[in-house]
Order: sequence, then structure tokens, then C-alpha cells
Amino acid sequence: MKRYHFAIISILIALCCFLTACQDSEKTTKEKNQMQLVLQNDIERFEPPNWWIGFKSDSLQLLVKHENISDYSPKVEASEISIQKVSKGNNSNNYLFIDLDISKAISGKFNIKFEKENAETLIATYELKERQKPAEDYVGFNSSDAIYLITPDRFANGNIENDSPLGIEGQPELLERTIDRNDDYARHGGDISGIIEHVDYIKNLGFTAIWPQPMLTNDMQRGSYHGYAITNLYQIDPRFGTLNEYQNLSQKLQENGMKLIMDQVANHCGLEHWWMKDLPFTDWVNLQKNFEDNKNNWNNSYTINSNHRRTTNQDIYASKADRKGNNEGWFVATMPDLNQRNPYMAKYIIQNSIWWIETAQLGGIRQDTYPYPDKEFMSNWAGAIMTEYPNFSIVGEEWSYNPLLIGYWQKGAKNKDGYDSNLKSTMDFAMQQKVVAGIKEDESWDKGLVKIYEGLANDFHYASPKDIMVFPDNHDMSRIFTQMDGDVEDTKMALATYATLPRIVQMYYGTEILMNDFKKPGDHGLIRTDFPGGWQEDSVNAFTGDGLSEEQKDVQQFVTKLFNYRKNSKAIHEGKTVHFAPFVGTYFLYRTFGDETVVLILNKNEKPITIDLNYQSEIGLRGKTLKNIITGKTQKWVDVIELKSKGVSLLTTKLD
Amino acid sequence: MKRYHFAIISILIALCCFLTACQDSEKTTKEKNQMQLVLQNDIERFEPPNWWIGFKSDSLQLLVKHENISDYSPKVEASEISIQKVSKGNNSNNYLFIDLDISKAISGKFNIKFEKENAETLIATYELKERQKPAEDYVGFNSSDAIYLITPDRFANGNIENDSPLGIEGQPELLERTIDRNDDYARHGGDISGIIEHVDYIKNLGFTAIWPQPMLTNDMQRGSYHGYAITNLYQIDPRFGTLNEYQNLSQKLQENGMKLIMDQVANHCGLEHWWMKDLPFTDWVNLQKNFEDNKNNWNNSYTINSNHRRTTNQDIYASKADRKGNNEGWFVATMPDLNQRNPYMAKYIIQNSIWWIETAQLGGIRQDTYPYPDKEFMSNWAGAIMTEYPNFSIVGEEWSYNPLLIGYWQKGAKNKDGYDSNLKSTMDFAMQQKVVAGIKEDESWDKGLVKIYEGLANDFHYASPKDIMVFPDNHDMSRIFTQMDGDVEDTKMALATYATLPRIVQMYYGTEILMNDFKKPGDHGLIRTDFPGGWQEDSVNAFTGDGLSEEQKDVQQFVTKLFNYRKNSKAIHEGKTVHFAPFVGTYFLYRTFGDETVVLILNKNEKPITIDLNYQSEIGLRGKTLKNIITGKTQKWVDVIELKSKGVSLLTTKLD
Repeated sequence: MKRYHFAIISILIALCCFLTACQDSEKTTKEKNQMQLVLQNDIERFEPPNWWIGFKSDSLQLLVKHENISDYSPKVEASEISIQKVSKGNNSNNYLFIDLDISKAISGKFNIKFEKENAETLIATYELKERQKPAEDYVGFNSSDAIYLITPDRFANGNIENDSPLGIEGQPELLERTIDRNDDYARHGGDISGIIEHVDYIKNLGFTAIWPQPMLTNDMQRGSYHGYAITNLYQIDPRFGTLNEYQNLSQKLQENGMKLIMDQVANHCGLEHWWMKDLPFTDWVNLQKNFEDNKNNWNNSYTINSNHRRTTNQDIYASKADRKGNNEGWFVATMPDLNQRNPYMAKYIIQNSIWWIETAQLGGIRQDTYPYPDKEFMSNWAGAIMTEYPNFSIVGEEWSYNPLLIGYWQKGAKNKDGYDSNLKSTMDFAMQQKVVAGIKEDESWDKGLVKIYEGLANDFHYASPKDIMVFPDNHDMSRIFTQMDGDVEDTKMALATYATLPRIVQMYYGTEILMNDFKKPGDHGLIRTDFPGGWQEDSVNAFTGDGLSEEQKDVQQFVTKLFNYRKNSKAIHEGKTVHFAPFVGTYFLYRTFGDETVVLILNKNEKPITIDLNYQSEIGLRGKTLKNIITGKTQKWVDVIELKSKGVSLLTTKLD
Repeated sequence: MKRYHFAIISILIALCCFLTACQDSEKTTKEKNQMQLVLQNDIERFEPPNWWIGFKSDSLQLLVKHENISDYSPKVEASEISIQKVSKGNNSNNYLFIDLDISKAISGKFNIKFEKENAETLIATYELKERQKPAEDYVGFNSSDAIYLITPDRFANGNIENDSPLGIEGQPELLERTIDRNDDYARHGGDISGIIEHVDYIKNLGFTAIWPQPMLTNDMQRGSYHGYAITNLYQIDPRFGTLNEYQNLSQKLQENGMKLIMDQVANHCGLEHWWMKDLPFTDWVNLQKNFEDNKNNWNNSYTINSNHRRTTNQDIYASKADRKGNNEGWFVATMPDLNQRNPYMAKYIIQNSIWWIETAQLGGIRQDTYPYPDKEFMSNWAGAIMTEYPNFSIVGEEWSYNPLLIGYWQKGAKNKDGYDSNLKSTMDFAMQQKVVAGIKEDESWDKGLVKIYEGLANDFHYASPKDIMVFPDNHDMSRIFTQMDGDVEDTKMALATYATLPRIVQMYYGTEILMNDFKKPGDHGLIRTDFPGGWQEDSVNAFTGDGLSEEQKDVQQFVTKLFNYRKNSKAIHEGKTVHFAPFVGTYFLYRTFGDETVVLILNKNEKPITIDLNYQSEIGLRGKTLKNIITGKTQKWVDVIELKSKGVSLLTTKLD
């Protein structure tokens, strides 16, 4: 009996201790820290540099990089946080990966101690922050948005102080040291500050979101301006500005009802990424042995490249060799291919994405080169993000003209292999191409406008057509004015069509002033021309209109009318779509929501033509008055419509 | 109590009567008929002309056509058959539609009497036959089959007696009265008898099935040779022969392990169809009022035609007007569009198809212009046939290069709109085109062999790729030799590719001797050139080889080797498929089943090239001996393979 008494007393004591502990934990970590915490960082690198409480995921994996850190044992000095697992790299002693259970954590700073026998203890202070807004409030871009794509180096140089890597105070030297506006592949000096200055311009054009190409540090020897060879996934490139500026950009956009979309790259990093000198695992990047065996003689022509056979992701007949060639080959030899089948790499990429969403209050992610990384990982990545941010949006880049592939990657696709990408939005290179062909080609039974009509008919296949992103042009293809062989009317027809389709729409900066690449069509450096007026020395200023040609002003005005109408048009955002098969060189597309009907009419006849509207009576517009969205003129919808010359008519029943 | 007694006695009497009746009905109808039946036919037209017992469907609908027949009441003189419903047409007094319940019927003949007050009773004898073989034994074509497509008028004139409509004894005069072999659009005299004579030739080529274009009566004024404007759906065109000959053809094919595929047309009939002069319902054909109002001035240019917007079948944005325009418009003004939404028409077409399967012991149906009729009906039609014949096959013609549409029509497709066609096989115009482009185009990153590779990669989308039919050419497109610009090696590459794909394969008659349409590419009449040797007066005889050029003999021999190998190749019929991305102008496709591996190598290099085979080691051929299917030469599979010149190598591990 005595032993039972003892047991009961023990339990009571334990209970008291527990209750005291609970009471104790009600003091915030912050309070405790204020009492006890010594802010200190003995560790070379901690990633993510901070985290937050309140995620659905209970765990956090810290990458710790420090000389010989794998010999140390980490201890967390916060009672409500526990270490679940500590892992070492198998390729370097300088890494530890610490899995923390933060399910009971409260916000504030705490220390992690790294202990080793006969060595000084290393201390690092880490912070778990409160989240700034509820997860549901991170609303991603959708079909109500028009997105302005920017090449930050080429848009506007808001701060000349950050132009040269040598001249940035407190920053290490970067490899590409000069700006040269005469070299299309060099840095030109555009930056975050330049975008912030011109948010009003973008907003006035009618756009509701911006997608700047990657702005993380790209410390590459050459061609670093494009941003896709990231060398530090937790740092804004100093030539673009600071993290604070990036956050200010997001803030200013939100104040204007606009969204910031971050361009992320899960497939690869830049060859100069800091970890390439000291890889934690033997499989941190794909074909790593090949790289390590040859890195002293490495150059851009090294044949480690992807075979770019992207269809191997779906092809039931693809050889294993080709599948591996696509997924494990490097995009180019200067972009090491991250191995997302390594679980630490997988976790690293997911956490990095979430860190940026939370840090910069993002309104969406554009994910580069979607069919190149491990596709199961990409599904997990997107799934992890969408679990934390149910209303968020991600668009993945698959450059394919094949609707089967565009459809395959979209969440909810009825794929025979059961694959679900968790990806809300894919890119519609197919419709991009069909609209251009539809407008440019001479009409025949299988050419011209029928390409638009039959291209759009493929929507029956997509899980959610309106969540797909379409665009006249982007940073990798000829400007739409070039695609249209310099025909202004054709360019307007195309722009109006893209903006009216049941899609999210994106346009490349400068397309509104007919920027082009006629000199060398398709040349990347040329496509990404400086926006006039973005530099103090520019003689033309497209922001103010100074020095623009009449044609440029006309199209800038057209874009402004078009996208400002689109901004508030429920019919375009989510309306019912009906279109009619092309007839005598004309195509009619209707979008309707409630009382609002928007009519897109493409007419390819140079001479006046009269179209009988009775065939289209099912739309129910007869007798109604419609306003031309561009000219503001009104007209009554009767039995016929006369189209005076080649071009687009964009009409609406909304007269106010 | 007395009343109860009476009731019980009544019941006993009724029971006795019932038992007697049952006993009586055990005598076969035949016996009864022998005792009572007077064979008689007072009725102008009865369709179907006979039927069978033992179908899953319990009912039979008879179309009765006779002057003022709608004033009569039909009575069936067979106790086990009951009339379920009698319907009149709403556009003519000369029709009755009688629905019979034949679920308890036994085989034999019986009379139907048509009675009317103050008029003589009309009598017609009808027969329900025993089925010749179990439903499961109707095995349709599948991927083990190679199908030889024939234009019957142009293949072989086996019986000159039936050439001229004026000269056919016991037949009414037909409208197209002469044969003229110098006119590509006139009748040339080919017939069933000609096909029967040459079954051995087709079998020796390696084909296992024939698909002749429609052979039902086409009593049109002009161009009747092609067969697609049927004027009597229950009659073999007298110029092709008799029903008996058609049955003999089927019989001979079956004796040779071959299948007869019937070309049927549910969408339309010929303008001279007998019912066009006296339409039973006001909606028997589509746009009927238009036709009836104008039939006295009817001509081929009359604008009643389909808009041919076949995508309206899938397009979620299609206007009602365009949908109607596709489905209700006439294919051409000489082909009235049958209205399958009229339930009597629907039943008529279904019964007609079943009648031919049963009458001619068919091995499959090819259905014309699949996306033109009402698609719900087409699903019911195919479903009705497949219910009666679970192992049967039907292939539907949708001329589309869009895999989304090809996939949509195949049974088991995961269509978002829930549509299930019940159609086992669709036609692969997409791969037809990709193979041609793949072989003809100069190689580049997106041209040449990659078209075959990426085209085949689309198979991930199809419910059952191996049940899709591919073909080098058909009766509506240029001959493959013409498509290949007269290049024999390219033609062989194409033929070998089509025959090796995971598909059913079909080839057009005469392609084996390089028949072509260079004189006027794509011209239908020219494409359908007479097969040399099919006419007694021909100076060249391709059946015997007399007069063929060396090139023609070479390709005929190539086709013979190719299809004879294919005939017994499980690897090609149902083997696993693996292919490798094109590399330096070569493409490797492997088909494997058990020990048998077939290797298709397409090489576009004119000069010798050596290919490293280690990249393809996953196939596991290293060290094995392979035989060239065409040349019979063997070679060992080692680290490399040398390809000496442009062309196809078709190898197999099966050495015997």
C-alpha cells in the first residue's frame, strides 16, 4: 500500500509541476526573453533566417551552416519548442539540419546552443514571429487580374546608388561589376525603387498586379540581369535594392489594391550559389558527381544539360533514360539542377517559398520551368503552399502549345495517371499562338480566325479555364508588335482578344508603347529593352508621354481604356462565354455576367462589311444600346452591324 | 359461399386454359405455320425485312410502308408475339411503325394482318430467324488486325454482267447508267465478285480484315461510285452484286481468318433515297421544311449545308446556332441529314446496323462522319450494338488532328461533360500527320522526328491507345507515296512506322504498288484509281506482278514482309512500348511482349552514322541476335549500331 501512496503523491506533484509550467508558459517568450535572452549569432548561416507561428504545419527545418558544425549538438532554449531530429550532410561537415516541433511555440526570440566537448559553445538567436494577417487574406491573382510583367533591370532606375556592386555600402563585392546600357546582356541599373516610383503608372494603365522577374541575388559572372540563376535564395539582389524596399513595393501595391507576384525558381540555382562550393549532400544537386569531378574545368558548354524532353513527364512510353535526362539534366551548364528528391532540399524550397509569401505579403507566385523539376515534388510544393494559404495562386511555366500538357498541370485535371499538381494556374502558350495566327493568317477553312475559335474550343478539356494565364508576349518571346509584323490594328486586335478571353491576362512592360524586337526578332536582350523614361538621361519618357510617337500614344491610350474597363468587368472576370464560328472574316465573342455583356468583334475585312446579327439572336442584345469601350461611342444593337474597316470593336452594355 | 365456389371454379378453368395454351405454344411457330401459314406479301415495304430471336433487346420496330396504311390496324398472328405500340407518321398516311414484343418469340414465319373497315385485309409474312452463332463470337477488329481499305468500284471488276444498271436482270433501272473508266467520278465496274476473287491476294499481303466503302444501293444521278449517299439501307447495290455475294465475301474472309468491316452512314442518306419522296414525319430529316419547300428547285448548291464546325460537339462556349448548324446542316446538299432525335429514325438506324451484322456476319463497323449526327444518339447506337455484341468493334471517323477530339470520342474517356461514346475505336488523323511530317521535315528542335516522338507521347491522354486506328492514307487523302513526294525510302519508313505503332493499322488498296495522285494531288477521283489487273483489259496486273515496275515490286514485297510479320507479332499487337527521344536524326521505338522485341529504327541521315546503344540499355537487348524483318539478315546487338543510309530498319528478336 505504501508504494501506491507514494505513486499517488508523485502524480499529484507532477500535476502541480505541470500546472506551474503551464502558468509559466503563459508568460510570453518575449517576456522571458526580455528577462534572459542574450542576442547573439555565432553561426555563419541560418536558413530560413526567421519563421512564424500559426502555420498548419507543425515543423520547421533549419539549415545551419558553419565550419564543422556537424560535430556539435544543438539545444533549443525554449521549453515549448522541441528538436525532433538532427541530421548531418553526407558530403560536408559544415551543415546541420534541425527539425523543430513548433506546434506549441509562441512568438519571440530564443537561443539555440551548439555544444561540443572541449570546444566553446556556439549560440544563435532565432525568432518566431507573429503572422501579420490571417492565412485566408493572402488572396492570389485570379481572372479579375491583369498582370504587368517587368524585367526589373530594364524598367526604371530609381536609385543610381545601387547600380554598381562596388558602390553598395555594407555589401560584399558582386561579380558583375558594371552597368552598360549599350550591352543588351549586361546590367542596366533598373531596380525596385524604380518600380515603386511607377506603381501609379502601372495602375493607371489598368493593371492590378505586377510580376517582376526574380529579384533575388544573382551573383553570376555574366548575364545576371535576367534573375533566373539565383545565388542566394534569401536575399534581394543589392543591385535591385533591399528587402525593405521589396516589402515597401508590396505595401504600396496593396495600398493601391494591387498584388505582387514573385517569380520563383525551384528547378535550379546559379552556378555561383554559395552552397556550390560546399555541397551538404552527395545528391544536393542532380548529376553532382559529374559536376564535382569537373568543376575546375567547368564552362557553359559542359554537356550536363537537360535533354529538354518535357513530354517525358506524361509520356507512358518514355524511356527511363529520357525521363532522367529531362528531370536531372541542368537547364544550362550555369544553372545547377536542384535535386528535390533529397528531402532536405525539398523542405528547403518549400520553406523558402513560404518565407517570401509571409515576408513580402505576396499576392502570388510564378514558378519557372515547371516541367523540369521532379513532378511529385512540385505537387507537394504547391500543395504545401496552398494548404497554408487556401486563397493563394501559383502559376507554373510550361512552354507548350499542346493543350494536353497545359491541362495536365492544372489542379483538378482528370489525368489518367492520377497526377494532381495542386497548381491553380498554368500558362496558355497555345492560345497565345492561336490568337496571333488567327489575326495574321489569311482566312481559309482551317486558317485565320478559326484558329482562335477552335483554340478556345479546347477549353472543354481544362479543369478551370479561367484560372489559366494568357498573354500577348513575355520576356522570352518576341513582343506582340513584332509578332504582328508592326501592324498597329492587328496588335490592338490581339491585345483586346487576350484581355477579353476567360483567362487571367498578363502583358509585358512596354508593350503598351509598341516596344519591339524588329532589329533581331526573338533576341532576349533586345526583347528586354529599357523602358524609355526609366533613366534620367532618357530623351523619351513613356511615363509622361514625352517624346512618344502618335502611334505609341494611341496604343498606350488603347491599353489604358482596355485594361481599366477590364478591371471592373465581372463579365470578363467570370462571365459566361459564347462565341460564334468565324464568318466572312469576322469573329464574335460574348462575355456576359448579369446585365453586363461585353462583345469582342474581330474584323479582318479591309472594306466595309455588314453582318446579319439575327444568327446571333440567342445572346439577346437586340434593341439594347452598347458603348464602344475604346471610343466611348454608343450604338443600338439591331438586325445588322456594319464594320467599316479591319480592326477590333469592343462593346459593352454597361453605359456608365 | 356459392359465389366463392364459382370463383374458385372459374380460377381452375382459367388455369386449365392457361396450361393448354402453354402446351400449345410449345409447338414451334414453324410447326404451326406449316399447318396454317399462307405466305403472302401485300405490303409495299417492310423494314427490317426479317429479324432474329435471342437478342438482349426484347423489342422490334417494324417500318411498314404502303399506300394509306395508316388507316389500317395491324394484328400479329402469333400468340407469343404482342404488339406494344402502333404509331403513324405525322407527314404521310403511307407509314405505320409497329413495336413488337418478341421476348417470348420463337423462330419462324408468321403473318401480320392489316385490317380496315370496308376494305380488303392486307397480309404480310414476316420471319424471325435463329441466330447463326453466339453473340460473343462476333469478334471485331482490334490491334492484332491490319485492315485493307477498298473502294469497291475501283478494285476489281469480277462480274461484268452487273456493270450497267440497264443490264441487271430483275432489277429496276438505276440512275447512273454507264461505266466510264476514263472519268474518275463515274462508275468503273468494280464489284463484290472482284473482291472475292482477290481475297487471297489481300491475305498474302498480310492483311487480316477488309473495309470496303459502302456497298449499299447508291442510286444517285452522279458520283454514286463512292457509296456514301445511300438510297436503300437494306439493299446491296446491284452494280456491286447481290446480298448473297456480300455474304459469300464475308464467308470467304472468315474461312481465311479475316474480318469484313462494313462502312455505315448514320448521318445522312442520298437525296434519291426512296423515303425522300414521301417522308413519314415532319422531322424525319433535319431542315426538312426547307427541303420540302424547295425540292422542286433543289440542286447541289442549295445552302442547307452543315457549317462543319465539328468542335461544337465539345466546345463549352459554342453558340446554339453553330451547334445546330453542325448537327442539323446537311453534309452536302445531295445528302439529306437524318434526324436521329426522331425516335423512329433512331430505332431504324440501330436496327439497320444490327441487321447487317447478323446478316453478313460482320467483323466490325466503320461509321462515317462521326461528329455530325446527334452525339447522344451515336452513344446510344454504339451502346445498343455493343450490348448485343460485346466483343464487336466500331471505329468512328472524326477527321481531326486534335488529340483532344480524338480522345473525346473514345469509350472510357474521362470527359468533363460526362460523355461516353461507347465507341471502341477512333481514327488517328493526328498521328497520320505526325508520321508524315516526322519523316519529311528537316530535323530541328521542333521539327522532324520529334513530331513522331511527341505525337506518340500524347497517348497518355487516350482511354485505350491500342484501339485507335492509324493509317498511311485513305480514300479521302493523298496516297502516302504522294504525301512523301515520291520518295520510296520515306514511304517505306512511314509504312513501317504505322504498322509498328500501338494501334490498329489500316492501309488503302494499291498503296502497296505506290499508287499515287501526283497528277492532281488530293483529287478524290484520282486517289481512288483503278487497281491494275482488276479489269480484264488491264495491261498491268498487280495481282500477279505482271508489268509492275521494279520499285512497285519492291514496295509490294516490303508491304508483304511487313504485314505478314505483324500478323503474328504479339509484340506489335499488345506489347509494351518504349521509345527514345530522336537523336542525331534517328528515332528508336521498341515493342516488347515476352521474349519478342521488335525494334523500329528510323534514320534520316544520308551518310553512315554510328549510334551508341548504351543509352538504350534499359531495353535489355545487349548480346542478343536480331533479325531484319524485311531482309531476313541477322545481327548481334552490341554497344553501337551502324546505320548505313537513310531508311527504316525493322528488327526482331524472333528468329524463326
